[in-house]
Amino acid sequence: MLPEHFVPVAADKIYRLFNIGATGLIAAEFEGDVDVMPASWVCALDLIPCKVTAVIDKTHYTRALVEKSGYFAIGLPGAGIVKETLYLGSVSKNDEPDKMAKSGVALLEVPNSTIPMVEGCVAWAVFKVVSEPHNEKSYDLFIGEAVAAWADSRVFEDGHWHFETASDALRTLHYVAGGHFYKIGEPIVVE
Amino acid sequence: MLPEHFVPVAADKIYRLFNIGATGLIAAEFEGDVDVMPASWVCALDLIPCKVTAVIDKTHYTRALVEKSGYFAIGLPGAGIVKETLYLGSVSKNDEPDKMAKSGVALLEVPNSTIPMVEGCVAWAVFKVVSEPHNEKSYDLFIGEAVAAWADSRVFEDGHWHFETASDALRTLHYVAGGHFYKIGEPIVVE
Repeated sequence: MLPEHFVPVAADKIYRLFNIGATGLIAAEFEGDVDVMPASWVCALDLIPCKVTAVIDKTHYTRALVEKSGYFAIGLPGAGIVKETLYLGSVSKNDEPDKMAKSGVALLEVPNSTIPMVEGCVAWAVFKVVSEPHNEKSYDLFIGEAVAAWADSRVFEDGHWHFETASDALRTLHYVAGGHFYKIGEPIVVE
Repeated sequence: MLPEHFVPVAADKIYRLFNIGATGLIAAEFEGDVDVMPASWVCALDLIPCKVTAVIDKTHYTRALVEKSGYFAIGLPGAGIVKETLYLGSVSKNDEPDKMAKSGVALLEVPNSTIPMVEGCVAWAVFKVVSEPHNEKSYDLFIGEAVAAWADSRVFEDGHWHFETASDALRTLHYVAGGHFYKIGEPIVVE
């Protein structure tokens, strides 16, 4: 079940989850096998229906799950799970079959999707792969079209983020390198 | 001439300018004609040499300049030029030939590039288009390979951002919609 406070995001507002350029968690599932990897290189590509690009390297365990299932999800981890986010990127399920259990993240059921959600994310969106074999092979670049999305209403409502009214644990993460992240900061509104 | 404090970014660290997902300014030039457009949808694609993706709609004046010249630049505007950034996205050079003058931004010469830099950016990178006609036509998606990059050493040094030691005007912008941005916030370092 989705976390308390999670509400659906209207199809014409899903791209706004991604406009701020937060670090994502890419999740995929095939025949019950689940993996999650962090990815800074996720980006909106189109408005309605929302499409995104996601770079998923050939060496990542998640990649085969995406290729076999034709779906992936992207969550935006809040600062409250920064350690878990780093762990998910430091350990490969190729080497550690128990990676998901050892990561300490809780996986939650998502309506109409077999990909579970990572608790502690402030938004979650499910994508169907738009097959582009040349991009996938040459650039590890996947395109997904949004099927559904939800966000934590404590920080996202009516198509706008409002981090300043909630706990710092719900601020998005913006990765630099080597365990060094920034949290999203304060708003600026230009009239 | 590049602004004081600007220093070259090593080729193997350019992708880190883009990891944090800041809103960019895409600039292009052809035969002396210059345009600049803001774009949330810019993203790193590869490490070394750094490649990026950039979504540049067919309706944008900048697009033809990119197509004719084969080059574009991406700057990361600091919060100090948030109004100018919004203006550059609100007005098209198709409708307003004087857009650049009216935007109020200062354009500075960049070594070995005919694309001028927008003063008030905290990083500037020049890219050569990697021709991918299908992506450009179907998705307005351009791939660029970095030729050179510079960053403001007051906020980026040795491959890491350090916004917390400088003025708020040098914090990157993260666009939501309709004049609503966030500044990048505080660091988190996971050991």
